[in-house]
Amino acid sequence: MRADIDRLMEQRGLDALVVVGLDHVGVLRAYMSNGAHVTGGYIVKKRGGSPIMIVNGMETEEAAKSGLEVLTYYDLDWVELMNAAEGNPDKATIAFWAKMLERAGVTEGTIGIYGEGHLHEYISLVGDLREHYPQYRFVGERGRTLFDEAFMTKDADEILRIRSVAARTSEVLRQTWDFIASHRAEGEIVVDAEGSPLTIGAVKRFVRRALLDLDLEDTDMIFAQGRDAGFPHSRGEPDDVLRVGESIVFDLFPHEIGGGYYHDCTRTWSINYAKPEVQQAYDQVMNAFEIAVDNFQPNIPARALQEAVQSYLEQNGHPTGRSKPGTMEGYVHSLGHGLGLEIHERPSIGHLSHDTLTIGNVISIEPGLYYPEQGFGVRVEDTFVIDERGVLVSLTDFQKDLVLPLRG
Amino acid sequence: MRADIDRLMEQRGLDALVVVGLDHVGVLRAYMSNGAHVTGGYIVKKRGGSPIMIVNGMETEEAAKSGLEVLTYYDLDWVELMNAAEGNPDKATIAFWAKMLERAGVTEGTIGIYGEGHLHEYISLVGDLREHYPQYRFVGERGRTLFDEAFMTKDADEILRIRSVAARTSEVLRQTWDFIASHRAEGEIVVDAEGSPLTIGAVKRFVRRALLDLDLEDTDMIFAQGRDAGFPHSRGEPDDVLRVGESIVFDLFPHEIGGGYYHDCTRTWSINYAKPEVQQAYDQVMNAFEIAVDNFQPNIPARALQEAVQSYLEQNGHPTGRSKPGTMEGYVHSLGHGLGLEIHERPSIGHLSHDTLTIGNVISIEPGLYYPEQGFGVRVEDTFVIDERGVLVSLTDFQKDLVLPLRG
Repeated sequence: MRADIDRLMEQRGLDALVVVGLDHVGVLRAYMSNGAHVTGGYIVKKRGGSPIMIVNGMETEEAAKSGLEVLTYYDLDWVELMNAAEGNPDKATIAFWAKMLERAGVTEGTIGIYGEGHLHEYISLVGDLREHYPQYRFVGERGRTLFDEAFMTKDADEILRIRSVAARTSEVLRQTWDFIASHRAEGEIVVDAEGSPLTIGAVKRFVRRALLDLDLEDTDMIFAQGRDAGFPHSRGEPDDVLRVGESIVFDLFPHEIGGGYYHDCTRTWSINYAKPEVQQAYDQVMNAFEIAVDNFQPNIPARALQEAVQSYLEQNGHPTGRSKPGTMEGYVHSLGHGLGLEIHERPSIGHLSHDTLTIGNVISIEPGLYYPEQGFGVRVEDTFVIDERGVLVSLTDFQKDLVLPLRG
Repeated sequence: MRADIDRLMEQRGLDALVVVGLDHVGVLRAYMSNGAHVTGGYIVKKRGGSPIMIVNGMETEEAAKSGLEVLTYYDLDWVELMNAAEGNPDKATIAFWAKMLERAGVTEGTIGIYGEGHLHEYISLVGDLREHYPQYRFVGERGRTLFDEAFMTKDADEILRIRSVAARTSEVLRQTWDFIASHRAEGEIVVDAEGSPLTIGAVKRFVRRALLDLDLEDTDMIFAQGRDAGFPHSRGEPDDVLRVGESIVFDLFPHEIGGGYYHDCTRTWSINYAKPEVQQAYDQVMNAFEIAVDNFQPNIPARALQEAVQSYLEQNGHPTGRSKPGTMEGYVHSLGHGLGLEIHERPSIGHLSHDTLTIGNVISIEPGLYYPEQGFGVRVEDTFVIDERGVLVSLTDFQKDLVLPLRG
């Protein structure tokens, strides 16, 4: 969690962090600045010191909401640096980095650069910084990074916010179920009271509005039917009409409006009735879900849960990513993943994972079975927290029924 | 435009491009893949060759919408590479890059890495790639990059899409004006028919729903009142109640739903009446807007328009970023910027810009005046295209009236 950052810096031999972000995507920046909504700038933190925000003058008011010390580019002599660089912002930026680090009290040592950005820009910039400043060592990090580790355990504040997103997302699942149920069947297709066909596009619009009413924001939900449901990441075709007896995978993973914490959940629905092969796959996915939950204990290696699920599904004749790497049929993905300010965080719950499941993790559990050539897919997913007692607690509060009967 | 990419690669001595993106942000990836909605993977293009997409097996269906050749990680022997790397994905990734480049027919030369990503990851990865593959030179780029140049001129298809976003956004401006106008004043505050105060949060919710109904997505609009309006990037406080006679800066810059083309526009509204100082600032901003439009001609240096506006506002007693660099009062920002798949693209229209305004540009023009200590700000903005005749044509179709009279 956030309180661990100095320790994590020390483990990595980092004397300072520089954290940046893109215009409207700045997950690490938001984490370091208590959620302030700036669209650029830098956060600099000396190990053991408080972070400083450096932003465009237009953003000082928003930046101040971080509670951190806020400086503008002009406070760090941007005008003079631009003059000295004869108006070349790339040159001025090189000089600016030295100003910024000196202002944070960092005159030498290893500087970790973190965050989202334009790779082409930073690959170029880091080369120049290394050339200009032998007193600093500019480094990145991959594998299980400092922020991966910090994000892995949530503090009480973060869990409160995720719980709230979970409750609201669950409410939207409920509303969506009711919305579809209010329709009727006309032959194989689903229509409204006036006989107009209900499309996936119309359902998604309903969902997005319902989310907004609860101050949540869609981030490209999946609502995929039939063969499309057989591809785990197919978004669904907006013009397709809902049909009875087809598996529908509805994967909803909104975050707080304007960027913030996520909740991740999936239901599989089949309208009015389920085909036998879909019912069977659903029953097995539900068993797999139970196996994952039942096998959980605090400090268990994450891969143990995936392997338990893989073993069960393999025994039932399904290929898995372990028995047949790269398979596009059967159980093709990981059991789950951490989530928080990002939709995919550590721990990862795959059979190659080296992560451990510990108190403070917020994770998804989402077994699935995919048979696109047979025209269906099934996935069921809740988000869980491992609470302070070490108990795995579901945050997703909506029933997992497969068959959605129309009432219209 | 897209057709220029090979030429732009040649200018830079690039033998190949590798383009990546983040989960839900992949502007260059979308540009290279005709808008396919994948959440990871690589696009590799040899100069003179067609781009190849390499994605997770779960994303092949979405990737296929690009019309490009699509491969999965498994097609490029990910399993074997992971085995050879004893399960270490960082090591396997290094080997994977060679596979990927070879598959694209690139066995040596200069490889440009572009796109959005985790900087820490790529700073580390590029170091390892350089160490492992002396036959390749991995480079980034800053300043006016290959994609900055490509984005700068839009093709007919892109302009059609931006025109559509512009028409829909303009409709939302109209609906928002009507929504506010349907309220009434109670003393200094704006209330609905039942006497409940109208908050900025409620207006934003109305706007987001109106956008969604037209398949547009908000990207953190500004709706800032009074002193907040005096800070160009202040988002506005959701709990603040709308008040009569206060300047409201409403800057709306949505994009196509799920990511895509933007439109950018700003109106300043003052409910029921305008204070004299706001009216005067508004009149001058409108004059500045006209000066910018009137001074336009094809192939003019972008800074010429900004300087004309700065001169006019300075003559009227306002500090500007030219007369008083770093000023937080007066005319504090650039006149405008290109936009398209990103909200801020080249050309930039500031007094330090070296860009030229040419046929095919889509740009914003947005003069403003800011006096937070006097409790107001004013900005007016349209998006324009420089059409095939070299004429500057506004795409924003909504009146610029300052005073919004309540009818309720």
